[in-house]
Amino acid sequence: MALVECVPNFSEGRDPKVVEAIVQAIRSEGVRVLGVESDKDHHRSVVTFVGEPEACLRAALAGARIAVERIDLNQHKGEHPRIGAVDVVPFVPISGATMEDCVKLAHRLGERLWSELQVPVYFYEAAALREERRNLEAIRKGQYEGLKEAVRTDPARKPDVGEGLHPTAGATVVGARGPLIAFNINLGTRDKRIADTIARGVRQSSGGFRYVKAMGVDLQDQQCVQVSMNLTDFRGTPMHRVFEAVRTEAERHGVNVIGSEVVGLVPLEALLQAADFYLRLTGFRPKEQILELRMWEGEPT
Amino acid sequence: MALVECVPNFSEGRDPKVVEAIVQAIRSEGVRVLGVESDKDHHRSVVTFVGEPEACLRAALAGARIAVERIDLNQHKGEHPRIGAVDVVPFVPISGATMEDCVKLAHRLGERLWSELQVPVYFYEAAALREERRNLEAIRKGQYEGLKEAVRTDPARKPDVGEGLHPTAGATVVGARGPLIAFNINLGTRDKRIADTIARGVRQSSGGFRYVKAMGVDLQDQQCVQVSMNLTDFRGTPMHRVFEAVRTEAERHGVNVIGSEVVGLVPLEALLQAADFYLRLTGFRPKEQILELRMWEGEPT
Repeated sequence: MALVECVPNFSEGRDPKVVEAIVQAIRSEGVRVLGVESDKDHHRSVVTFVGEPEACLRAALAGARIAVERIDLNQHKGEHPRIGAVDVVPFVPISGATMEDCVKLAHRLGERLWSELQVPVYFYEAAALREERRNLEAIRKGQYEGLKEAVRTDPARKPDVGEGLHPTAGATVVGARGPLIAFNINLGTRDKRIADTIARGVRQSSGGFRYVKAMGVDLQDQQCVQVSMNLTDFRGTPMHRVFEAVRTEAERHGVNVIGSEVVGLVPLEALLQAADFYLRLTGFRPKEQILELRMWEGEPT
Repeated sequence: MALVECVPNFSEGRDPKVVEAIVQAIRSEGVRVLGVESDKDHHRSVVTFVGEPEACLRAALAGARIAVERIDLNQHKGEHPRIGAVDVVPFVPISGATMEDCVKLAHRLGERLWSELQVPVYFYEAAALREERRNLEAIRKGQYEGLKEAVRTDPARKPDVGEGLHPTAGATVVGARGPLIAFNINLGTRDKRIADTIARGVRQSSGGFRYVKAMGVDLQDQQCVQVSMNLTDFRGTPMHRVFEAVRTEAERHGVNVIGSEVVGLVPLEALLQAADFYLRLTGFRPKEQILELRMWEGEPT
């Protein structure tokens, strides 16, 4: 079974009735809602759900329909940048689905947001149609208020699908991206400079791995420091490769890795990669050989 | 969802119609059949299926019903030792089920084999009621032909449930055991003595790990040697601990581990143990944090 994750962000974080109505609409399409986080200061809610690709498409549209009906961006003030009632909708391939599948889902959702709800759409990250729109923040520049003007006057700001802005729901950014893994490694020292140095070594922005964002953090309570990371594509930069790099760099400072943590969700494949690497498995076929995957995904023999 | 594996062995390996009837009966109870292996020389078939505990109990009984109807041990000759048409039925806890759950399933199946099919039952391994019956071979001593006499004359050979033997289906050995993992590690040498030495070091019988059986094997085709192992309880003796022991022992001989292989099925937990160990995860909760497990097993939020 193909499994896709979808993490729509809605510009409503204060009225639980509206959030609940959106979540109900999503859930009614046969996906599994894994989390709902509402933030009052940001005035924003993030829903995480997983399901088969077609169900995720229907669920995203169903949630958007409610949000477009019930949220008025003209009345909306919050700390988080936004351009629409349905602000951002990323699709994430989890298993049995490729990034290309998620790009297609994103494009199909975009067409329907415009044709059925009259909400214009911008495509970002892997679903971007223009290179300069890969970055979400470039699309959201000026936010709803600024974009209202810009779409009329600046051809470079025109939506990828549709025209202008929806009068109350603004526009929506739809895309496809890899699953994020929040992976932190704790070091047996209180010297934060060591964590900072290692973070610089492993993150892309200063010469490290392409799909790693990292920073040093001082964990006062635990009396140690941490290399706190986001892995933005574990297939490109696997957890074990990052772990080994951090371990080796720490050793150079005479420091041990005392533990690691995964914050939130992680795709199974990311952990199986690590088992495969360290056990030096050859010819291992997870879908055929792991009992649970045979049970859940396999065909009867 | 609790998941149990069941691997009944039937004394029919030559007539595909009988084997197919048994498999159909098993499948009709809502379990997933992962494999059917028939051996003509052994005149024996092994069916592997997984499912929820109650479904596994029903499926084992349904398969047994067909086997008891269609197999006559008085006509049966094969190389593999056996005492019954349904010769052995082990239940194996996979996830969300304990060994104790499987022992209870085994005892319930035993009662029903006798009350519904008039087949007497011996309990073995974790389900054994007498210490000397933990070992399957002790129960099967003398096979069907010898047991016919022994149950009448030797009180020590009386079944745990029922009396005597079924006139055509003999008796059945029912039990509970941990999942077997066939785990082989290849060494970068052609010197089989090194594989033999390491095998002796890691297996229980010569002082190694409690749940490891091991031997050295010469892989002519691959021009290397192998430590070929069965792990009989990966919770007691995890894959990574065995791997590290083999790796360390090999290093002492100046030899590298060039790869490993898992033959056949492996429970997901065994691989997650390895990922957890090598990545030094702390506080990781697989059922809550692995996306696929949330999707397949979790409750909606």
